[in-house]
Amino acid sequence: MAGAWRPAPGLPEADLDTPALVVDLEALERNLDRMAAVARAAGVALRPHVKTHKSVTIASMQLERGAVGVCVQTVSEAEAMVGGGIRDVFVANEVVGAGKLRRLARLAREATITVCVDDPGNLDDLGDAVHRAGSSVGVMVEMNTAEHRAGVPPGEPLLRLAKQVDATPSLRFTGIQAYNGVAQHIRDHPSRLAATERNTSLVQESVDLLGRHGISCKVVSGGGTGTYNLEAASEVYNEIQPGTYVFMDADYLANRNRLGGPFRDFEVSLYVLATVMSRRPGIAIVDAGLKAISLGNGLPQVMGGGVVYKRFADEHGVLGPSGPPLPGLGKQVRLIPVNCDPTVNLYDHLVGVRNGEVDAVWPVDARGY
Amino acid sequence: MAGAWRPAPGLPEADLDTPALVVDLEALERNLDRMAAVARAAGVALRPHVKTHKSVTIASMQLERGAVGVCVQTVSEAEAMVGGGIRDVFVANEVVGAGKLRRLARLAREATITVCVDDPGNLDDLGDAVHRAGSSVGVMVEMNTAEHRAGVPPGEPLLRLAKQVDATPSLRFTGIQAYNGVAQHIRDHPSRLAATERNTSLVQESVDLLGRHGISCKVVSGGGTGTYNLEAASEVYNEIQPGTYVFMDADYLANRNRLGGPFRDFEVSLYVLATVMSRRPGIAIVDAGLKAISLGNGLPQVMGGGVVYKRFADEHGVLGPSGPPLPGLGKQVRLIPVNCDPTVNLYDHLVGVRNGEVDAVWPVDARGY
Repeated sequence: MAGAWRPAPGLPEADLDTPALVVDLEALERNLDRMAAVARAAGVALRPHVKTHKSVTIASMQLERGAVGVCVQTVSEAEAMVGGGIRDVFVANEVVGAGKLRRLARLAREATITVCVDDPGNLDDLGDAVHRAGSSVGVMVEMNTAEHRAGVPPGEPLLRLAKQVDATPSLRFTGIQAYNGVAQHIRDHPSRLAATERNTSLVQESVDLLGRHGISCKVVSGGGTGTYNLEAASEVYNEIQPGTYVFMDADYLANRNRLGGPFRDFEVSLYVLATVMSRRPGIAIVDAGLKAISLGNGLPQVMGGGVVYKRFADEHGVLGPSGPPLPGLGKQVRLIPVNCDPTVNLYDHLVGVRNGEVDAVWPVDARGY
Repeated sequence: MAGAWRPAPGLPEADLDTPALVVDLEALERNLDRMAAVARAAGVALRPHVKTHKSVTIASMQLERGAVGVCVQTVSEAEAMVGGGIRDVFVANEVVGAGKLRRLARLAREATITVCVDDPGNLDDLGDAVHRAGSSVGVMVEMNTAEHRAGVPPGEPLLRLAKQVDATPSLRFTGIQAYNGVAQHIRDHPSRLAATERNTSLVQESVDLLGRHGISCKVVSGGGTGTYNLEAASEVYNEIQPGTYVFMDADYLANRNRLGGPFRDFEVSLYVLATVMSRRPGIAIVDAGLKAISLGNGLPQVMGGGVVYKRFADEHGVLGPSGPPLPGLGKQVRLIPVNCDPTVNLYDHLVGVRNGEVDAVWPVDARGY
């Protein structure tokens, strides 16, 4: 694709062609260390969600620090991870469609694969596909956590599905997936905690119900960057699956922590580097628009403060003043996306910077489909 | 990257793994024929903007039908087009930054390259880079058409810049670029026409002013899918640069034509194919969210009507009923993006379908940076 151009190691960051997706490697490493330490201290498994970075290199860094495997959202991501040598992949999502089930079942010949189910018909199709491929796949029953999300209701419906998994020879019932999506960005800590506790009680009841029917949950998995420490401390979940913590973004920066201050458990380590390419009084246009930074949930923050990213087109962003003067023609700015996951998905490469210089260029291995 | 999986020609569309970016090839061909015919009849050059499809194949189809060359927005796109054999590329945008200017100047050794300027300092840098590369580059002075857009004000400022181009040996003054971005999606035709006429008068005045100073404009270029026929009939513009017409999208579908009816000069030929992957009463979740369809400017339309795409996450979209019943688990839906350009940029391949079967798979050559 486009991008025959690659920055060479040693190139000063200031000389990068833009827009570029830049990772502050030291901040990244601190984030990875911090989450690994939290999981260790809490005695839960860390299975980071790699949908955020889609990078085999960063997944490997997470495994080196003790992660038990990775989570992905799609069969494409699973294939990219396994192709890069990652040997334990949990597709934390349902897989529907004959083609995708075939691909998943085949992949299970090369690596340990686990997948979610929330429907008996899909479970049948999965069992058949895995049987035909001669492989074995782990299954987590996904518990519904909100009206607009996937998952089977807790209690009896969940038990029925778990029994069906148990009765399917090619499949291994592994446990319950209960990622509380709506809780992740609840801004104030008391409400976020309350939402987590309500969800966790339902999970506990389902674990107990399954237990009374002789079905034990080896894994109870959930928890994103917004609630990771809460599920970790719950004594119900034994695995957490945060993703965004590696990079952080403006959406999570807006959460508040337990003490009511800004959520800063992790540092912003990723930004889109852009250049001012046109300039008039009161207007500075940068070369990063909708195709360079995901704007589906809001406009990016300009690092350094004082300047506001006000509007956008496909390849342009318009900065307006908000105090300090606007940067001049040719100056670089650093943009923090509202959501880093879909922003990373726009790029073929992550540019890792250390001490103001390019240190590494990593492919976004699992970009696209 | 991800996507080792490719659909094979002959595969029924119903068997495609999703999400997939699908092109109805016959509708595409009709769109290409129609625009080529309009330009021919109006006696203007057609230089389609390939930022929409980023495909060397589709660009070639446009050239086969009489296009004089292509427009791109970035140096990356220019490199991908030239790399695919396209020999006349106009970067309808300013290029700022030493690295990008070097790449552009080098590219001009392999193909005819034209670029925009709106700043004297950038013009100096461009001239130097081209001189050092030993190449020659055409320059269009971009006229400002709205407060938040690039471009130099019409009249004297435009003349000054044109004179500066003329005085730079490595550069060829080619003409004026005046793409009226704000007019493209003005819904009612009389207002869209009025906005075009206001802009066109300013262009005419600048053309005349340059003429009185001995500088002739070989090319006067502008006009997108929303106004293509207006610039074509203006007798001021001699080149039009529409992009989106090849595919159409929900944003342009909302324009009204000269008779007050819906704008249907071109057909929707592109959609995101998605599959229902989770289902409960009143809820159908499809496997196409923010990473599969650009949502920066609004939610997609579901083809076939009656069902509404209500909310989204990164890899999921939630359909709610609006009359007819929701599709069942495993059923496919076709989503028309609000904006097709940034949607195409999410994919590595376009799947061309004819008579319900995969007919061709084309790389999105200029995807990303």
